[in-house]
Amino acid sequence: MTTTGADLPRLRELNSLSIVRALRNHPPSTVTELSRRTGLSRPAVDVIAQGLVTDGWASVLEPGASSAVGRPARRYQFRAGAGHVLGVDVGVHKILALLADLDGDIVHSVRHAVDAQAGPAERLAELDEVVSACLTGAGKTPTDIWAVTVAVTGAVDSSGRTSFFTPLPGWKSVDLAAHLSVRFDCPIVVENDCKLAALAERWKGAASDADDIVYLLAGMRTGAGLIIDGVLRRGFGGAAGEIGALPHVRWLKAPGHLQNCPGVPETVGPDDAAAWVFNAAREGHKAARSAVSRYVKDLAVGAAALVLTLDPQVVVFGGGFSRSADLVLDPLRREIERLCLRMPEVRASTLGADSVALGALKLSLNEVDQRLFSAGLSAPVAPRRT
Amino acid sequence: MTTTGADLPRLRELNSLSIVRALRNHPPSTVTELSRRTGLSRPAVDVIAQGLVTDGWASVLEPGASSAVGRPARRYQFRAGAGHVLGVDVGVHKILALLADLDGDIVHSVRHAVDAQAGPAERLAELDEVVSACLTGAGKTPTDIWAVTVAVTGAVDSSGRTSFFTPLPGWKSVDLAAHLSVRFDCPIVVENDCKLAALAERWKGAASDADDIVYLLAGMRTGAGLIIDGVLRRGFGGAAGEIGALPHVRWLKAPGHLQNCPGVPETVGPDDAAAWVFNAAREGHKAARSAVSRYVKDLAVGAAALVLTLDPQVVVFGGGFSRSADLVLDPLRREIERLCLRMPEVRASTLGADSVALGALKLSLNEVDQRLFSAGLSAPVAPRRT
Repeated sequence: MTTTGADLPRLRELNSLSIVRALRNHPPSTVTELSRRTGLSRPAVDVIAQGLVTDGWASVLEPGASSAVGRPARRYQFRAGAGHVLGVDVGVHKILALLADLDGDIVHSVRHAVDAQAGPAERLAELDEVVSACLTGAGKTPTDIWAVTVAVTGAVDSSGRTSFFTPLPGWKSVDLAAHLSVRFDCPIVVENDCKLAALAERWKGAASDADDIVYLLAGMRTGAGLIIDGVLRRGFGGAAGEIGALPHVRWLKAPGHLQNCPGVPETVGPDDAAAWVFNAAREGHKAARSAVSRYVKDLAVGAAALVLTLDPQVVVFGGGFSRSADLVLDPLRREIERLCLRMPEVRASTLGADSVALGALKLSLNEVDQRLFSAGLSAPVAPRRT
Repeated sequence: MTTTGADLPRLRELNSLSIVRALRNHPPSTVTELSRRTGLSRPAVDVIAQGLVTDGWASVLEPGASSAVGRPARRYQFRAGAGHVLGVDVGVHKILALLADLDGDIVHSVRHAVDAQAGPAERLAELDEVVSACLTGAGKTPTDIWAVTVAVTGAVDSSGRTSFFTPLPGWKSVDLAAHLSVRFDCPIVVENDCKLAALAERWKGAASDADDIVYLLAGMRTGAGLIIDGVLRRGFGGAAGEIGALPHVRWLKAPGHLQNCPGVPETVGPDDAAAWVFNAAREGHKAARSAVSRYVKDLAVGAAALVLTLDPQVVVFGGGFSRSADLVLDPLRREIERLCLRMPEVRASTLGADSVALGALKLSLNEVDQRLFSAGLSAPVAPRRT
């Protein structure tokens, strides 16, 4: 290959990109290390790395006084603050937005309660407000954001809508990505809440050591997210993990045992009944203990269907009810063991109800890295929709 | 890198290996094409290719008279007859062995009936006889065989045994690989019958166009094999696809509707009752039609559990009962559609009961290719256990 004068700027851009890649996901590196990793000459790396510092892609670590042997070298590191990502959970009762840098460190978060009966217009307006507040709180504008992922309840089809089913009133035809694209010109992804929670538990939660994970999102609704061979299972049409829709495996009626438990005071609303029952069971309330026991037995049938189908390494008990893992985990283990051929580990979520928004953040980070490492990119640039 | 005299034989072997790889899974190729594919010089390719022909790895296609422009070049092709593989199905009622060349073309097959109640010693003796007859019939010896895969009923654990469960009497502790290793020193794999049948349907059956497949092995027992993103799902401990063990999804009782159908003549044995019922239903027998209908309803519950969990592209109805797909497919589709969120395609197996042995053959071929293309190999050699 001969290089003409006109090719030179492009070649410099390509070399910048390979240095960015050599910095990303590595500890701070010297010019010598970067030269070895990229195959570029040390002088070329030196010039390009300084350019990347100027452009905000990299920062410099000057050698400390402690490195006393010889002349210590300065190190370059990927600047996590070069860009930011958003992860948003649009739930039945709340909207939670997390804004993080490219290391996934959270810079700002905003949480608003939403009326479970709110229609699409009201919920979208609330979403816009939460996102605005999150950007403002972090001192960012939409152009600072490199990827947005929004979690919704219900399987997300190929058009980004929850057309199969969603408990959010009037939400089936909502095109969230189109709505957000007015404000953001970065990649926007819409994904199912259970799937994202599973991703979060593998990222920095209860299953960070596992590649085969069944995640249970347990609350007043029960859902599942599946990670198979390290990859989030979306399904051919986006509807994987929806075992709960099959009446035979009892997830549809499982939370009813808690909601309809005898003895729940009239002052306790339907949304708080389960929490009251778990607390009462913990204090020895007989009907409450029996309700929890029946809840776990039904939860275990659907869990067993997933375990028998996939034979995972780990089952993670997550979602709002995971606050009561102390009451659920042991009987859940016993029931799964009774119903299944090979027993997986059963662990409690360590992220709780925030796992959904954290998973959305992780998918945004994946989206950024995928674009940064895609063969098509000709220079280091912030991701934009094409 | 400098090359000393002592390195030369090894270098020649490595180059032979790269030519073998450049021939495998390609149409017949000229020296020029092989040179381009491997980066070796044309004279080097010429010498090595002739050596591979001498060693039996390649054959020569002399240019036909039709290629009249210029001096037409000879072409080399991978010799499918360089090695052979075995695929064996050790079933409840039969043992079937298939012997094929490296293109998967079947050279010889032997099928023996076995008593369903036969103990391990009797069944292993029968297996040995079937394998011997297959080798003899093909004019081969054990050293001609490069990989053996044996299918068994029941999930296969990491030790190659069906320790979780198997309907074969006394078979749980049988170490088939150890038994066969006395005769074969090539790689030996033991795998579950449903998983292998799924592999076969994707290889050359009803789902060759799909990457996400739920395969149903329907007979007097019902099982499942899963292919996810193009990869056979074994499970963390080998027990994926065993949804049938969960009573709630009704596979345990589904075939009973056929076996206990009123009107089956006393002269028809329990193993043939289902076939009688399907035939009678086809001829309008009322009780038989009702039995088939109840069978399909129960089959659909387990199928729906798999579909809701995985959201596959295709469900393949296979196994012995797939001979009656004309009666099963439409009502099965209706039931799955009623129970699931997104409807997959439902297709009848095109391989029928031979799919298990064919899948075993395919896994043997995969094993050979994996070794041929593994980075560890230093020369083209027939696979041997390490």
